[in-house]
Amino acid sequence: MSLVPVLDDDEMKPEARAVINEIRDVRQTDFVNNFWRVLANDPAALKRTWGSLREVMGPGTLDPLTKELIYIAVSIANGCEYCIRSHTAAARARGMSEAQMMELQSVVAMASETNRLAIGLQVPVDDVFKGLPPAPASSGD
Amino acid sequence: MSLVPVLDDDEMKPEARAVINEIRDVRQTDFVNNFWRVLANDPAALKRTWGSLREVMGPGTLDPLTKELIYIAVSIANGCEYCIRSHTAAARARGMSEAQMMELQSVVAMASETNRLAIGLQVPVDDVFKGLPPAPASSGD
Amino acid sequence: MSLVPVLDDDEMKPEARAVINEIRDVRQTDFVNNFWRVLANDPAALKRTWGSLREVMGPGTLDPLTKELIYIAVSIANGCEYCIRSHTAAARARGMSEAQMMELQSVVAMASETNRLAIGLQVPVDDVFKGLPPAPASSGD
Amino acid sequence: MSLVPVLDDDEMKPEARAVINEIRDVRQTDFVNNFWRVLANDPAALKRTWGSLREVMGPGTLDPLTKELIYIAVSIANGCEYCIRSHTAAARARGMSEAQMMELQSVVAMASETNRLAIGLQVPVDDVFKGLPPAPASSGD
Amino acid sequence: MSLVPVLDDDEMKPEARAVINEIRDVRQTDFVNNFWRVLANDPAALKRTWGSLREVMGPGTLDPLTKELIYIAVSIANGCEYCIRSHTAAARARGMSEAQMMELQSVVAMASETNRLAIGLQVPVDDVFKGLPPAPASSGD
Amino acid sequence: MSLVPVLDDDEMKPEARAVINEIRDVRQTDFVNNFWRVLANDPAALKRTWGSLREVMGPGTLDPLTKELIYIAVSIANGCEYCIRSHTAAARARGMSEAQMMELQSVVAMASETNRLAIGLQVPVDDVFKGLPPAPASSGD
Repeated sequence: MSLVPVLDDDEMKPEARAVINEIRDVRQTDFVNNFWRVLANDPAALKRTWGSLREVMGPGTLDPLTKELIYIAVSIANGCEYCIRSHTAAARARGMSEAQMMELQSVVAMASETNRLAIGLQVPVDDVFKGLPPAPASSGD
Repeated sequence: MSLVPVLDDDEMKPEARAVINEIRDVRQTDFVNNFWRVLANDPAALKRTWGSLREVMGPGTLDPLTKELIYIAVSIANGCEYCIRSHTAAARARGMSEAQMMELQSVVAMASETNRLAIGLQVPVDDVFKGLPPAPASSGD
Repeated sequence: MSLVPVLDDDEMKPEARAVINEIRDVRQTDFVNNFWRVLANDPAALKRTWGSLREVMGPGTLDPLTKELIYIAVSIANGCEYCIRSHTAAARARGMSEAQMMELQSVVAMASETNRLAIGLQVPVDDVFKGLPPAPASSGD
Repeated sequence: MSLVPVLDDDEMKPEARAVINEIRDVRQTDFVNNFWRVLANDPAALKRTWGSLREVMGPGTLDPLTKELIYIAVSIANGCEYCIRSHTAAARARGMSEAQMMELQSVVAMASETNRLAIGLQVPVDDVFKGLPPAPASSGD
Repeated sequence: MSLVPVLDDDEMKPEARAVINEIRDVRQTDFVNNFWRVLANDPAALKRTWGSLREVMGPGTLDPLTKELIYIAVSIANGCEYCIRSHTAAARARGMSEAQMMELQSVVAMASETNRLAIGLQVPVDDVFKGLPPAPASSGD
Repeated sequence: MSLVPVLDDDEMKPEARAVINEIRDVRQTDFVNNFWRVLANDPAALKRTWGSLREVMGPGTLDPLTKELIYIAVSIANGCEYCIRSHTAAARARGMSEAQMMELQSVVAMASETNRLAIGLQVPVDDVFKGLPPAPASSGD
């Protein structure tokens, strides 16, 4: 059970319901998951979080499936069950195969293993890894 | 300074040097970064870790750049400076643009934000996210 | 189910029961939550942990509600469901409104987002943020 | 050294410079710290992150100093040196005394200690901590 | 419910079943826990992970019980319920007493407390803690 | 540089200096590391933290070296450089060999790897791992 109610549409304030309906429009489905129904208790937070998510996960230089895989990886590292499950569902809907999911899990586990070794042994950063990218002018383009 | 010496080739035991040379062969470069030179203090750990990394990061169902992005994401979540820097270098070498790197950072940050909201509000997992994949027979293929 | 039994009063050793009764006295309620009943399996740990908690969360320069909010924030970051729920209850008992709780969640989420950006991009600390406070003599007062 | 350049004003694109100038206006100071100068490599991320931060850390139901304390607490738990230092500076500017800062550190440390005990011993959540707040209608107001 | 099926022996591919049977042989018991049955969906990951675990947790310079205690400590810090429970069972099977388990919990909690203080206050590393071990030649033996 | 001054003995209040001297007595050395000199800015926190540490790391059912290894493991998982370095020094002083340290690192890394797999795949806890210890009466002894 969440710390605040999982709101049905008719329990929400109008500002919250407007965001929920925008989620429906963008995702082209009537189903709106609990994360948003809980956030709806704070319409401003709902609007801001959805706005950021829509922008970050929208069209860019990385393809949508890659972004979902990164999202799952972070959620595993942060130990967020809800996020692992909801973004795994999203990734499957975007075409992630079961083999790709298992491979993702192996990469996340491998990274966690070497992360601990590098931190644990206090490996000094090689000079070659400290440099900036060749030309500042090329960044952000 | 690391907890154990960053070994030069001629300070390593033969078993360690053999692995270091295999890393050179596979990566087609003479340069071997400090992570491996520190691990070389324990030849068995060096051999095992390199063997796993080679297998996990080798050919599979996800492309090499995607794997590096996932690796960086986990390293950020775990707060490992060495790993962030070394795998960012690897990702750039595999063609990651500066725009892609900045987009990766936004996805990692966004995921961390919603992770905390889902954990902090104890959002219950939607029934639809609890299901297994349609057919066990299809997994792992 | 916990790793060791959640002890009833009559299953505890006398040293543990004495601490449990002190908790009742200080909190002015008969109810003692599971955290202490589990710790009661190790009377010395129970006594030490309660003593520290009582001192840290007791009167000081920060008001009690602010301390509870900080406690919840850390518990979210550490992913501790028990602690999130028990300290949210404590904060509500100390007057935290639902709006304040939602605002707390937003601050925790925002901090997690910018934490990841600062770590992920390896932002160098500004010189101005490295200074010590003006006068050592003023600290601790 | 950061992964991308810390941009001077004249190295930024116009959209980024506009946000930097807004930061100056809101904070009423010419000084803009490295975090924003690094984010400026991605004008959209800069604009979005600043917009969220301004909203979350702006006027609400929690006072500004309390929010900074929560921000620092999360930054400690996430191990972000940059964030610990910059928000400690911000909290001091908002009136945090040295005694309050030390008390904050004790609360964060205490919470981390009991978090690990609750997780480590798998303490079951008490029934009384599972309830929702008394009236859904009161939430978000 | 896991993200992929917990496989029975007869649902596994031959390569996976072979590893499962090796686990039975090494552990001298018919019981194989869910972790391996879930990993069996990816026979290569199962084989690699079991191979590494067997090597790391096998005979070395630290006794088996000490290794299990370290394993539990990391699992608590990472918030992994499955790992806390499975390795606590393993440690009990290797002779860990209830008093030792409670003492382990106290050490983990204490370390988490001082970790946060050292990070939170940004305590500078003492010069004496920065040195390498006296002689490189002695390492790895 | 720490957030508050690293105090010399003659900059401390009498209550703090008394604790510092007790540390010298117990450890039988004049050297007192920065952690305590920073905490000395808050005499009450110094006294409480040293008191807890002395009790937790003092004689018990686990030997002193094992406790130091657990302490290092948690510090690696929490990414605390200061703690990794100071407790590695302490463990070496208590007889940890270089081979034992490398083996510790491997166990920590392995645990981090399987932790991520168990969390990432949401492996359900086996019934056999959910049981309580055989007899409550035996706990805490």
